[in-house]
Amino acid sequence: MRRCIKCGKKAQIYLHSHRLSLCGEHYLEWFENRVERTIKEFNMFTKEEKILVAVSGGKDSLSLWHALIKLGYQADGFYINLGIGDYSQKSLQKAKDFAEKHQLTLHTLDLSKEIASVPELKSYDSRPACSLCGSVKRYYMNKFAREKGYTVLATGHNLDDESAVLFVNTLNWNVEYLKRQYPVLPEDDGFVRKVKPLCKISEKESALYAVLSGIDYIEEECPFSEGATSIEHKLYLSQLEDKSPGTKLRFYSEFLRKLYPLLKESSKGNLQKCEVCGEPSSNSLCNVCRLKLKLSSQKEKI
Amino acid sequence: MRRCIKCGKKAQIYLHSHRLSLCGEHYLEWFENRVERTIKEFNMFTKEEKILVAVSGGKDSLSLWHALIKLGYQADGFYINLGIGDYSQKSLQKAKDFAEKHQLTLHTLDLSKEIASVPELKSYDSRPACSLCGSVKRYYMNKFAREKGYTVLATGHNLDDESAVLFVNTLNWNVEYLKRQYPVLPEDDGFVRKVKPLCKISEKESALYAVLSGIDYIEEECPFSEGATSIEHKLYLSQLEDKSPGTKLRFYSEFLRKLYPLLKESSKGNLQKCEVCGEPSSNSLCNVCRLKLKLSSQKEKI
Repeated sequence: MRRCIKCGKKAQIYLHSHRLSLCGEHYLEWFENRVERTIKEFNMFTKEEKILVAVSGGKDSLSLWHALIKLGYQADGFYINLGIGDYSQKSLQKAKDFAEKHQLTLHTLDLSKEIASVPELKSYDSRPACSLCGSVKRYYMNKFAREKGYTVLATGHNLDDESAVLFVNTLNWNVEYLKRQYPVLPEDDGFVRKVKPLCKISEKESALYAVLSGIDYIEEECPFSEGATSIEHKLYLSQLEDKSPGTKLRFYSEFLRKLYPLLKESSKGNLQKCEVCGEPSSNSLCNVCRLKLKLSSQKEKI
Repeated sequence: MRRCIKCGKKAQIYLHSHRLSLCGEHYLEWFENRVERTIKEFNMFTKEEKILVAVSGGKDSLSLWHALIKLGYQADGFYINLGIGDYSQKSLQKAKDFAEKHQLTLHTLDLSKEIASVPELKSYDSRPACSLCGSVKRYYMNKFAREKGYTVLATGHNLDDESAVLFVNTLNWNVEYLKRQYPVLPEDDGFVRKVKPLCKISEKESALYAVLSGIDYIEEECPFSEGATSIEHKLYLSQLEDKSPGTKLRFYSEFLRKLYPLLKESSKGNLQKCEVCGEPSSNSLCNVCRLKLKLSSQKEKI
C-alpha cells in the first residue's frame, strides 16, 4: 500500500511525473504550494495587486481561482459569454455558482453585445474557431482588466496546454511565437501583465484538485474545439508521457530554463495602437476592429 | 494517372513531402541533384577533396557512395567490421560486392583486432549498444580518415535519422547537443571534417534510390538496434509525417535555418588530446582508451 509522504496515511493519489504519493488533504496542500512556488519563481504578482482571473467554468480556471483565494491573493473572476448555445449557458452557471458559494466577485461580459457570438463570428471568418475565439477573448480580457484597474490578468493554461503549444511551435521552429512562450508577459503600453500560474500543473492534476476541493465545473469540452490540432498534439505528448513520466514537464521547464533566455535576447516586435479603438495592436487596425468591419460589410450585403 | 513532371511519361514515384511525380530515370536525377544541392548549400566539400565514405552495407551509405561517384566526387569507402556475427558478415559482403562492381576502393578495419567486437564491448559496458558502438566507430573513422590523408568523412545519416535525434534533443532541450546538430562539423585539431550529404533525404527516398540504381544492400537491421529509443522516436515522427507530409523536413530544415544560428553564438566546448592515444577528446582519457582500460582490467579479473 502506498502511503502519503507527508502524514503516512493511506495515499489516495500517486503523481507519476513527480514520483509522489499523497493523501487527499496533502494533495490540496501540494497543489497550492506548487501554484505559489510558480508565482514566486516567475515573479508573477504580489498579494498587494488586484488580479483578474479569466474564468471559463472549467476545471483549470476554477481551480486557479480557488487556489489563489486560499493562498490569500486578491482575485476577482471574469467570464466572457461566448454565446455558444447550451455550452455557454452551462459554463456561465458553473462560474456564477462558484463565485456565489465562495462569496467572490465575478464580472461577466456578453460577446454578442460587444461584437458577435463565436458561432456568428465563425460564419464570417475562415480561421479555425479556437484561434478566432482566442484572439477576440484576449482583446476583451485585456481591455476589461485595464479599464477596471486590474494590473494582472491570470489564465488557467496548464502544462498540457503550454507543452502542446510549445510542441507545435517547435515542430515548425516558429521563433517569433517561441519568444512569447513564457508564463509571464509583462505589462506594456496598453497591456496589463498576463500570467499563467498553472503552467507547471498538468490537466490531470488540476482536475484532481477541482474534484477534491468540491468544485463543480463544466466537464464537456467546447463543441468548437473538436478536431483542433492542439488536441492531436496533446495526444502525442501524452503517449510520450505514458512511456516516460515527466516528459511534458521536462520539455516545458527545460525550454524556459535553457532555450528561452537565448531567444529573449532578440528584438521586440513593434506594437502600435489600433487606429479605430486605440487598443494595442501589431497592425494599424486591430484584430477585433477588422472582424467588426468584416461583419458590418457582410450584413450590408444582406 | 500521375505523370513525370520532367518528361511526361507515366510516373513511378510520388514524393508526398515534395508533391512531386517522377519516372524512375528522373527520380535518380532528382536524388543526385538534391545531394549535390545539399553539398553546395552547406559547403561540405569540393571535387578536389578526397572523401572517405563510411559504408555499412545498408541502403543509405551505399546510395550516398553511388551518388557521390556519379556526381564526380573522389570518394573511397571505409567499412568497419563490428563483429556482430552473421549480420557483419553479410553487410561486409554487400559493401565489397558494391566496390568491386563499380571498381572503387574500399578500406576495411576489423574492430575486434583494434579493441573488441561490439558484442564483447557490450558485455563490459552498460551503455546502450548504439551509443557505445557509435562512439567507438566515430573514433576509428576519424583516426583512419586523418591518417590516410582524407580531409572529409561522409556518413549516410538521412533525414529520418537527423530529425529523430533532433526530436530527442529538443524534448530534453539538450542545448549542448543541439549546438552540434549541423550537417557539417568543420575540421578541428585532430578532427577531419564530417558531413552528412543525405540529411535532407528521407529513409524511403534513399531506399528507392538504392533499388532503382540496382544497389544490392543489406536490408536487415543490426540486431543490437532493437528497442533503441531512436526507433521509437522515428515511428512517432513518421506518424506526424503521415498526417502532414513534409513535417520531418520542415522540422529539420527550419531548425538549421532559424534556431541553429542562435545556438552557434555560444562558446565552444574545450577539446584536448587523450593522454594515452593522443586522439582529440573532451576528457583527458578518450572514450576508446577508457573502454580498453575497462576491458583489460576485466580480463585480468578472469
